[in-house]
Amino acid sequence: MKISARNQLKGTVVDVVKGATTSHVRIDIGGGVVVTAAITNEAVDDLHLAKGQPAIAVIKSSDVLVAID
Amino acid sequence: MKISARNQLKGTVVDVVKGATTSHVRIDIGGGVVVTAAITNEAVDDLHLAKGQPAIAVIKSSDVLVAID
Amino acid sequence: MKISARNQLKGTVVDVVKGATTSHVRIDIGGGVVVTAAITNEAVDDLHLAKGQPAIAVIKSSDVLVAID
Amino acid sequence: MKISARNQLKGTVVDVVKGATTSHVRIDIGGGVVVTAAITNEAVDDLHLAKGQPAIAVIKSSDVLVAID
Amino acid sequence: MKISARNQLKGTVVDVVKGATTSHVRIDIGGGVVVTAAITNEAVDDLHLAKGQPAIAVIKSSDVLVAID
Amino acid sequence: MKISARNQLKGTVVDVVKGATTSHVRIDIGGGVVVTAAITNEAVDDLHLAKGQPAIAVIKSSDVLVAID
Repeated sequence: MKISARNQLKGTVVDVVKGATTSHVRIDIGGGVVVTAAITNEAVDDLHLAKGQPAIAVIKSSDVLVAID
Repeated sequence: MKISARNQLKGTVVDVVKGATTSHVRIDIGGGVVVTAAITNEAVDDLHLAKGQPAIAVIKSSDVLVAID
Repeated sequence: MKISARNQLKGTVVDVVKGATTSHVRIDIGGGVVVTAAITNEAVDDLHLAKGQPAIAVIKSSDVLVAID
Repeated sequence: MKISARNQLKGTVVDVVKGATTSHVRIDIGGGVVVTAAITNEAVDDLHLAKGQPAIAVIKSSDVLVAID
Repeated sequence: MKISARNQLKGTVVDVVKGATTSHVRIDIGGGVVVTAAITNEAVDDLHLAKGQPAIAVIKSSDVLVAID
Repeated sequence: MKISARNQLKGTVVDVVKGATTSHVRIDIGGGVVVTAAITNEAVDDLHLAKGQPAIAVIKSSDVLVAID
């Protein structure tokens, strides 16, 4: 599968915290940067996401804001 | 200002392409990774975004999907 | 690639309308239902999206609202 | 009420799973396709969403990604 | 139609700026606050949105970030 | 920090309800309007969000739908 999202950041799962319905998955994409994704518990199970696994943070361009200091 | 978004990726603006109402801003966050943001032309003007400027890509956790190869 | 999004609706591209920076891609998912996606022109080029091509509309659960009549 | 979202998929609620603050509502839109929505518990209560009820999955075009196999 | 979105801000359309595919609709919700929506040109036509018309800005809770000064 | 989001609605936190991983923060923006944000528990802790505190609801234009009665 190839997807339209312009942002596909490769990394490694740091941890997975499951909530009642929503999980937080943190992915280390290198350079000291960790990206947090909030996805369904079902998705975590379906992709067998777990600490140490390679994973890609996928983000649509229209969901990226820009800030300046 | 401090914002709730878990993902705040610091970098440098690589280029800004203005459309009729929507601009694409690309931010180099290091390690060979460039993030694309689709924001309004007004926001580009308001923040004076231009090539070479420091900028932060801000992404809410609930807008991050996870993929595996 | 396998992605976390719970909603992956298979269909066929009906048409692609390119704007200055944003394209509208319409995908017929069967049963008389056509889904519209607004994505970057770059993504359209990258995936070679064109009328008649098989495609999948991918939607994160947290982006789905529910309405009743 | 009439809403701007280009995607309004009519169906029937298959199940509702309530979490601590977030519920998952699954809507069968026909043709073997079930759409999952992650909405607040308050919205589920407010709309009296329950299995068997007619419901519409509403999705903004800018929240639809496109994938190809 | 009744929709799950927790945020439904009633106001009056201040202006509509059409782009190639994306329009910007600004809605005055009172108290000196104007909300900007980026929606498809098709939606603007479909809802006959124009300056002076009553309209509601609809926002899903999961799309609201929180900032502090 | 200055952010690209066109919608930055100033108000006061009315209440914070923490779930397992997701919190609901309600912000009174005046004129009888309360905006609900669904953000991570970590963000609530990080910003020390609590009842009575000044806060800003930040919303990207592409996340605003428009409805008419």
